[in-house]
Amino acid sequence: MLIENFLPDIFSKEPLYVQIGQFIKQQIRSGQLPPGTKLPSLRRLAAVLQISRTTAETCYNQLMAEGFVESLPQKGYYAADILLSEKKPAAKPAGGKTSPDVQYDFANNYIDATTFPAALWRRHISRALRDRELLSGYGDPQGELALRQALAEYSHESRGVSCAPEQIIIGAGVQSLLEIISAVLLDSVFAESAPCVSLEEPGFPQAEEIFRRNHWNVSHFTIEAMQPELPRLLYVSPSNPYKGRSLTPEQRRNLLRWSREHQTYILEDDYNGEFRYFSTPVTSLQGMSDGDHILYLGSFSRLLLPSLRLSYAVLPPGLLPAYEKNRMLYNQTASTIEQLALAGFITEGSLRRHVKKLKHLYKEKNTLLRQCLQRYFEGQVHILSYESGLHMRIALRNPESSLILAGKALEKGVKVIPIKTEPPHPEFLLSFAGIRMQDIEPAVKLLKECW
Amino acid sequence: MLIENFLPDIFSKEPLYVQIGQFIKQQIRSGQLPPGTKLPSLRRLAAVLQISRTTAETCYNQLMAEGFVESLPQKGYYAADILLSEKKPAAKPAGGKTSPDVQYDFANNYIDATTFPAALWRRHISRALRDRELLSGYGDPQGELALRQALAEYSHESRGVSCAPEQIIIGAGVQSLLEIISAVLLDSVFAESAPCVSLEEPGFPQAEEIFRRNHWNVSHFTIEAMQPELPRLLYVSPSNPYKGRSLTPEQRRNLLRWSREHQTYILEDDYNGEFRYFSTPVTSLQGMSDGDHILYLGSFSRLLLPSLRLSYAVLPPGLLPAYEKNRMLYNQTASTIEQLALAGFITEGSLRRHVKKLKHLYKEKNTLLRQCLQRYFEGQVHILSYESGLHMRIALRNPESSLILAGKALEKGVKVIPIKTEPPHPEFLLSFAGIRMQDIEPAVKLLKECW
Repeated sequence: MLIENFLPDIFSKEPLYVQIGQFIKQQIRSGQLPPGTKLPSLRRLAAVLQISRTTAETCYNQLMAEGFVESLPQKGYYAADILLSEKKPAAKPAGGKTSPDVQYDFANNYIDATTFPAALWRRHISRALRDRELLSGYGDPQGELALRQALAEYSHESRGVSCAPEQIIIGAGVQSLLEIISAVLLDSVFAESAPCVSLEEPGFPQAEEIFRRNHWNVSHFTIEAMQPELPRLLYVSPSNPYKGRSLTPEQRRNLLRWSREHQTYILEDDYNGEFRYFSTPVTSLQGMSDGDHILYLGSFSRLLLPSLRLSYAVLPPGLLPAYEKNRMLYNQTASTIEQLALAGFITEGSLRRHVKKLKHLYKEKNTLLRQCLQRYFEGQVHILSYESGLHMRIALRNPESSLILAGKALEKGVKVIPIKTEPPHPEFLLSFAGIRMQDIEPAVKLLKECW
Repeated sequence: MLIENFLPDIFSKEPLYVQIGQFIKQQIRSGQLPPGTKLPSLRRLAAVLQISRTTAETCYNQLMAEGFVESLPQKGYYAADILLSEKKPAAKPAGGKTSPDVQYDFANNYIDATTFPAALWRRHISRALRDRELLSGYGDPQGELALRQALAEYSHESRGVSCAPEQIIIGAGVQSLLEIISAVLLDSVFAESAPCVSLEEPGFPQAEEIFRRNHWNVSHFTIEAMQPELPRLLYVSPSNPYKGRSLTPEQRRNLLRWSREHQTYILEDDYNGEFRYFSTPVTSLQGMSDGDHILYLGSFSRLLLPSLRLSYAVLPPGLLPAYEKNRMLYNQTASTIEQLALAGFITEGSLRRHVKKLKHLYKEKNTLLRQCLQRYFEGQVHILSYESGLHMRIALRNPESSLILAGKALEKGVKVIPIKTEPPHPEFLLSFAGIRMQDIEPAVKLLKECW
């Protein structure tokens, strides 16, 4: 070994023995010191590098502890066989951002964060950070009680959900909660039969992924054609034209009747349930029924910030024993600090005020977008749904497919979501939450130019 | 309906039509208005309650939208069949805190949070909250790039891990990451064979749960008796006597040799890898090998706060294509705000300083605990391992089983974790991280009194 080549870095904060160790490791890694090579004795190492014998010994001891060096009694130190080859640079992952420059994005999952009360949130975070005792443990796997209490009240007030804090489970996003729900149902409703779930068309890939990975049989259904052979778990998103669609009161009632008659459980993903602009929000299915067969999912991604991963599930009382069995097996995924901050935020009434402000803002954007579409497209566009959610669904009178039209729009810098592709009435979803108010008119103008 | 019984709450902020609607809903829910009951006409409602006809109409429209009321053309309004029965109070879940009062807890999962730099963390949170654009979207499902870059550097510096940011996946805890890892391995290593994993004794229930739910075959193994028929995925926790045990350099080398010879993947759960008190921490297996067959898991629960749910996985480059396939199917579980805060915290060197402080503190507690055990128990106690992790493993010279002895300790208010139960050398784990320095001696004194 060319230990003589070692040059100490006198500016480094690392002690000398660590620096020498790194040099030797590097030589072993690079193959310059193949396994079995004899290393300098302690005395020689100390002499060559003009270090103390203690430093030399500390260095070799550390290398032995790390497995880079072996010592043979009476013989000395040897480079160990550590199976190293120099690291290949990591493969650059495929995919990523390759789309042309998007100037106006009607296809994103963004919200309007300009209204987010960051200072207020910061205050609640600071308050939560003061609770050292609570923060030094792992917290309740079900979620902090303070937040579950606040949610029991808030979900009742805002969505008509009727439940006790014991029925609520907190999680970092709907997927984490679906893992737990899947386990609970496998231990109860599907304890003796193959687990099956059917999602309302067009389904929801990220939920289906969880079920499939847990070996559920996954299918789709439509409210219009409900067959008796449907599975005992139906997944619907009654207030959201994007992940499912907005169900009419009649359809809601039918669904609940079906659930009662067929002893079917309904997994109600109440995504965007708060956002109904031209009438008071419709009560959740959970609140319309006795809740015995409804598993309710609520999320704060659209109400606060998508970057805050906070969701909750409400289990029917009958499934709580099965949850108890699984309770300790699933660590809480949501940050305790953010849970406590949200609990304070809700209890002080800030969430209610914030949602009110958001609804007002989105209603304005919604109205402006409709006005612009009507002004520029006149009779060529048909607005199919706009009353709720953060997306508007439109149909165009156009002989081309929605895919081609979306491509043309993208070339102009406007991104839209094509859905029903067939002409003469190709359909699109336009997400209006994330786009700035002042961008709506120019974006629609551009769409008109290329459609 | 006794609509005459309605009394408006003049102090309520709810508009009148909402208050009336709530009253009617309550009557429907309670069964006082059975399905099909005819409701007062608009004119009558307005007259009885002395409200405008518009208010009455708004009220009924809302009740119809919510599905509580149906209107029949030319006939009027009727209570709908909404399948309601008044909510039963939720069953109080079984379990919960029933243990006697614990005065000194050697069995918890707590850390010492007195050193946590809360003010500094708050500053990083505030800084992150300023990035509105980033926070208004869902963020990178793989985790924020800034944090992955910081982690690539930090994990190299602190644990010898060698990887590019592209290989890192962030998640809210190890379970969330294991879900993704399971999916990746099913699409690559186990694409054509039944998925099997073996965990080093005594295993890790919360990891096993994830694998089992994903239909993996789960077994245990011991390093001493590695059989050629072991599965192609081994789960070890080389630096942690609690979840696995501290492996010697020789055992580490053997494990890596096995991995190379049998083309076996190693899932290295580097829990508490930083906490080695009486020598520099040993490099991770990932860092000792070329990393091609190591999946590395790191966590910040013990380094910062358990209540901060931030963990990361490092995939070998060869598994990145399989990850790309699954990338969009798993939403990020960790809060973007906390990810960005941690990135800043690491980049500024605060994490390194904090870990140094923690190590110093835990080393002191560790030393004090050993001194107290030796002083009070003299030759009766044998300290089996103490060099690393946050737990000390001890054996007692005692004719009773560790379960009985743990029970006796609990009666005195001291909680310990019994492991090997058989006398004459029952074994225990004592967690020393969460207990206060000044509590160590009194706790050991109490143990001596009852053992």
